[in-house]
Amino acid sequence: MTDVAIGVDVGGTKALALIVAVDGRVLGEALADTPHNFAESDGVAATTVLAGLVEELCARHSLRVRDVPVGIGLPGLMRDGRLAFAPNLQSASGANVGTMLGELLASPHVYCENDGNCAALGEHQWGAARGIDDFVMVTLGTGIGGGLFADGQLVRGRSGFAGEIGHMVVKARGAACPCGGRGCWERYASGGGLHRLTRAYAVEGRLPTLVSRVGDAGSVRGEDVTAAATEGLGEAVVLMKEVGWWLALGIANLVAILDAGHFVIGGGLSSCSGLVLPWAREYLTDLVEGYGARPAITLTPSMFGPRSGAMGAALVAFERNA
Amino acid sequence: MTDVAIGVDVGGTKALALIVAVDGRVLGEALADTPHNFAESDGVAATTVLAGLVEELCARHSLRVRDVPVGIGLPGLMRDGRLAFAPNLQSASGANVGTMLGELLASPHVYCENDGNCAALGEHQWGAARGIDDFVMVTLGTGIGGGLFADGQLVRGRSGFAGEIGHMVVKARGAACPCGGRGCWERYASGGGLHRLTRAYAVEGRLPTLVSRVGDAGSVRGEDVTAAATEGLGEAVVLMKEVGWWLALGIANLVAILDAGHFVIGGGLSSCSGLVLPWAREYLTDLVEGYGARPAITLTPSMFGPRSGAMGAALVAFERNA
Repeated sequence: MTDVAIGVDVGGTKALALIVAVDGRVLGEALADTPHNFAESDGVAATTVLAGLVEELCARHSLRVRDVPVGIGLPGLMRDGRLAFAPNLQSASGANVGTMLGELLASPHVYCENDGNCAALGEHQWGAARGIDDFVMVTLGTGIGGGLFADGQLVRGRSGFAGEIGHMVVKARGAACPCGGRGCWERYASGGGLHRLTRAYAVEGRLPTLVSRVGDAGSVRGEDVTAAATEGLGEAVVLMKEVGWWLALGIANLVAILDAGHFVIGGGLSSCSGLVLPWAREYLTDLVEGYGARPAITLTPSMFGPRSGAMGAALVAFERNA
Repeated sequence: MTDVAIGVDVGGTKALALIVAVDGRVLGEALADTPHNFAESDGVAATTVLAGLVEELCARHSLRVRDVPVGIGLPGLMRDGRLAFAPNLQSASGANVGTMLGELLASPHVYCENDGNCAALGEHQWGAARGIDDFVMVTLGTGIGGGLFADGQLVRGRSGFAGEIGHMVVKARGAACPCGGRGCWERYASGGGLHRLTRAYAVEGRLPTLVSRVGDAGSVRGEDVTAAATEGLGEAVVLMKEVGWWLALGIANLVAILDAGHFVIGGGLSSCSGLVLPWAREYLTDLVEGYGARPAITLTPSMFGPRSGAMGAALVAFERNA
């Protein structure tokens, strides 16, 4: 086992790379935009960005690239090292990202894993789920990623695709999703869902103060809503309550199916978990079947927020390189 | 281990009791209406019916009640022997059915289990899931019951409540469910869902032939639709296609969450699985995220149909009495 590893979390919007010590200390970080909306899905653009992040961190820390194991958390179905299906990373859907990146970096130490699984691994090893062997990781980013832990182990399912909780349909024939489906949970309760709800509220005239601040309904962003909700602006709080309701709805489904008791909420949107989780907890009492007959259900903010996935990707690099 | 056991499956409409040999042969059966819509939920009415079924089977087979282990499959959350929450069996919700029945029968050999779990156990031991150690049991009855198998074992979750798949919300703010929620899967894809869709179709004028046959829109039953669909009546086939679509929608959610590959479809509605499963299989190709990136997903009719639960309840009796 080496002393340090690099973990990269490739989201639908940004890629975050961390250089992490074996005890979980973060030694450095680098960030880049994820290429997307490319006509080609050959993965070249995406892996070039990832290689740049790894090289940048290695250069900064005076390390040779081939000496540092690299873990990559990817947003989609990983099969035989290939990113078999990635609705939020069309520019690399179908590509063998691990092999391509290994070749670009001339490194034999590149390891890929689903991003939701990475987040669960990171929080279980070093974060909010330390010592909790049964929990569900829910990452609220562009989409919703997930990782299921049972008996201290990641639940992988038949092909390693388990935990794609963001594509659970919660509103039949609802909002269109990049996965090709409609009404997926991540269309309602993620950062992307916040954005979508913001647009809808603005157009419906339900955000009059915010629209008057930014000038027109089309320009109100999710960040404007979270900032205003933090200040207590009523119209923004109402919208965040709705995000909390949708979050609770999907969690209630996972409780019904898995009888899970602990949920760790991470991802970019978790930075405003104080605006969402209290409502989600309240709505759970109505939305969980037989709520009163069950032991308490805990929703905990992740320790690493938008960094959980990169932390877990570094852990994957440590473990597979051992 | 005794040579025979009695398994009782308590549905929302009927209770079915089977006397089963240790090798899975069914030696006899008895059926009764389930008491429901009672103001009291003390379980007295329900356990009296169950005791009658057990006594009837024992008398017919010249057995002493106390010598025969009895397994009861109950539609709801089982906790510490108590039926902690049972939306489809309000007359016993909250009651300690096992203890009450043991006292009524003066038998120390009464064992309770969730009905969906029973169905999964029965099909895994003797039926369509024999030799398949990872599968999801889906029982289409008054509601939808479920049982999850992984590595040859029932997945129980934190309190033994896992597999309550019928109360996964697939249509936010949709049809009201006896569980107190709205838009639960079982409001769309179960026998009860067929009934509800039939009423809706009839009222909307989408079942003109069937309405003219029975006289008025309020009198068309689910059975009329399945019979007419078997004959190939277009309007009935359209409705069964919709049931198949809803079935596929929930299964697609379970695939996303669990990465399950095998589904065994049982329960009363499975008697017309030929009218539903072909459509469900077809819709899965659209509804499963990344369908083409995954190995094939199988939907198999159960071997025991509406008897799976009672078979599994008998298995529970054998195993816990051993």
